[in-house]
Amino acid sequence: MEALKQKILDEGRVLPGNVLKVDSFLNQQIDVKLMEAIGKEFALRFADDSIDKVLSIESSGIAPALMVAKELGVPMVFARKRKSLTISENVYSVDLFSYTTQKHTQVIVDQRFLTAGERILIIDDFLANGQAAEGLLKIISRAQAIPVGLGVLIEKSFQSGRQLLEKANVRTESLVRISSLVDGHVIFSDDGK
Amino acid sequence: MEALKQKILDEGRVLPGNVLKVDSFLNQQIDVKLMEAIGKEFALRFADDSIDKVLSIESSGIAPALMVAKELGVPMVFARKRKSLTISENVYSVDLFSYTTQKHTQVIVDQRFLTAGERILIIDDFLANGQAAEGLLKIISRAQAIPVGLGVLIEKSFQSGRQLLEKANVRTESLVRISSLVDGHVIFSDDGK
Repeated sequence: MEALKQKILDEGRVLPGNVLKVDSFLNQQIDVKLMEAIGKEFALRFADDSIDKVLSIESSGIAPALMVAKELGVPMVFARKRKSLTISENVYSVDLFSYTTQKHTQVIVDQRFLTAGERILIIDDFLANGQAAEGLLKIISRAQAIPVGLGVLIEKSFQSGRQLLEKANVRTESLVRISSLVDGHVIFSDDGK
Repeated sequence: MEALKQKILDEGRVLPGNVLKVDSFLNQQIDVKLMEAIGKEFALRFADDSIDKVLSIESSGIAPALMVAKELGVPMVFARKRKSLTISENVYSVDLFSYTTQKHTQVIVDQRFLTAGERILIIDDFLANGQAAEGLLKIISRAQAIPVGLGVLIEKSFQSGRQLLEKANVRTESLVRISSLVDGHVIFSDDGK
């Protein structure tokens, strides 16, 4: 997706540890027009897949997932990252390890919001090691819902997330694939769409 | 706003401690069509206010704020609730106390995303004691930006948030005002719009 590529080149900042900061248009400030275009693009790619619901994870996944759900005309659900007092106990819960923060987190979705047989599209901002996606897949599996696919805005193709998802037989669509962030330079994969 | 009132009556659940759970359409599962209607309603109410940016706070504020920003054609920024390793140090930061969780949290916005003189509309899901709104107002003030108003979906008018905002001279628009949650019943204020 050319608009997202250009935005990364213009505003993305590479930090040590293969971190790509895109907080000026995605992770804290949100370029709403870009999110709308992203929503349309994913809706197009999954147009024939009879999606019932879009699932994402707080916080950075919410904006793009909402726009995809809007285009598909379905509800959106976001997983929460820790147990809050105001969430009931009837939840699907998995443990997630983040390489960025080196911390374990509980990821939870209320059982009322995923139903057996529902066709679920996962939307997230990044695919790196695939930990978040794997956590959401476990939750979908426990709900006996169907993981139709994963749509991510930015894939770090030099990390192992895609292999993990291919092993799990989940169709993965990335808007932009990055093959290297070495020396502060963003290199896109040739086969990025 | 009649559609939001009806949704609260149909799906809202009152828990002990004056907690109104609306996680089936706002706080975890999101009714996207309702969010679009909410976006249009706030855009109408603040149409003549030359809003430059919508400011909200993760996670539940993101979806409605995004829809308001979309209607107004401006960027959206959401404050983060704790310091993450991938956020730089150049932030506006305030301490926030949540009565729901009884915990202190740091609320932070990167300094690049609020500029002196910008006209800011705050959007949030609930107004109760006004702590979150007060925190965001402090951040706006530090950035020397202009707090044009606060739009909330659900105001608990039996709590002190509105008084606090009137004292701060900030125009506050609520889509629904609730005057009581006693005995598990939702009572709307007569003057709710």
